[in-house]
Amino acid sequence: MTGLTGVRACVFDAYGTLFDVHSAANALKADIGPEADRLSMLWRDKQVGYSWLLSLMGDAYKPFWEVTQDALDYAMEATGLADRKDLRQRLLDLYFTLAAYPEVPGMLAGLKAKGLSTAILSNGSPDMLNGAVSSANVGGVLDAVLSVEDVGIFKPAPSVYQLVMDRFGLTKRDEVLFMSSNGWDAAAASHFGFRVVWINRSGLPLERLPGTPVAIKNDLTGLADMIDV
Amino acid sequence: MTGLTGVRACVFDAYGTLFDVHSAANALKADIGPEADRLSMLWRDKQVGYSWLLSLMGDAYKPFWEVTQDALDYAMEATGLADRKDLRQRLLDLYFTLAAYPEVPGMLAGLKAKGLSTAILSNGSPDMLNGAVSSANVGGVLDAVLSVEDVGIFKPAPSVYQLVMDRFGLTKRDEVLFMSSNGWDAAAASHFGFRVVWINRSGLPLERLPGTPVAIKNDLTGLADMIDV
Repeated sequence: MTGLTGVRACVFDAYGTLFDVHSAANALKADIGPEADRLSMLWRDKQVGYSWLLSLMGDAYKPFWEVTQDALDYAMEATGLADRKDLRQRLLDLYFTLAAYPEVPGMLAGLKAKGLSTAILSNGSPDMLNGAVSSANVGGVLDAVLSVEDVGIFKPAPSVYQLVMDRFGLTKRDEVLFMSSNGWDAAAASHFGFRVVWINRSGLPLERLPGTPVAIKNDLTGLADMIDV
Repeated sequence: MTGLTGVRACVFDAYGTLFDVHSAANALKADIGPEADRLSMLWRDKQVGYSWLLSLMGDAYKPFWEVTQDALDYAMEATGLADRKDLRQRLLDLYFTLAAYPEVPGMLAGLKAKGLSTAILSNGSPDMLNGAVSSANVGGVLDAVLSVEDVGIFKPAPSVYQLVMDRFGLTKRDEVLFMSSNGWDAAAASHFGFRVVWINRSGLPLERLPGTPVAIKNDLTGLADMIDV
């Protein structure tokens, strides 16, 4: 593709996009046993699903940190690990120090070197996001860390994506280039009006949802090279 | 438990509760091949997930019949069956004649014999619901078939559950006894204020969501015996 022009802010989803949500369970894989992968997948699926359901109920929003614990409790019961209270605490502790994908620090530095604004837009609670940003040592190459906690509803509600417009004082939605590895987030952000690069780390089919990414990549390597400033 | 008193309407979720959503893929199992079960699970998961996402986007509602087709297209691609256009059409045709669970006709007749009002409350498009009700021959023991199409948003939005109150002219939400096999639907209906019996057909853990069922059963057998009129 030719270079993208007119981009003013590069905004990233956090979990699954910059930070590897499965790194927590992976770090304890030997201790968890044969259900480790299923536990991790189910934890993530329930975390996301609960965020949608609580948002739709209208009066049931709670911080993502509580949702993350609820989802883990479900996943541990479903995989026969409900009695492993030690494991529960260690998995939750690890969520504050999730590994960043290896290309992330260099990629963010490359965007800053081009004079672009950078930000995270995430369902995560501010303390969760601060922990992951600090642990990955990327605070210096991020201009903003935006949490849905300011609007009290989760993605893909439009008011979440609007946070980016307000923070950077933008009026044209397509001045935002948004990156997410979550196909549904990529679709919804595109439907909102952002230009979107779907980071399809797992090689999944395109979601049959409104909104179409302008590009699809396997990871974030080379992102800065796609943008003409 | 002692008998439930003060129940005026018994309302049922359709898909998974009265009708077996996996009966379509099961009927074609030999033709689909080894991916049949995964196709069916993924089809259902995407169907439900898309209904939540479209609702949250705010301006993206489309009829459940379209959502059902979108979800099947995703599931067929994910299982390597995208080229089987013949299969796609046969699976969709079967969705209009899903099998009812065996206890359903007798259970509904038992409720009517006690003088209770009965209804379906479903995400399904009216034509889908009419097809399944007709195929299962339960139209004569249902007082109403309510579709979210009248409010243009999917479960678990409160306006969906409100349809029941309006249809039966009720003012107290706990006069409704609501049955769903979907744990999230059971939780949300309970959070809305219905009394809920979760029909936990698959022996799953309780969802960590607001709202608590008044009872949990493996199937719908004996439901009428739980109600004192």
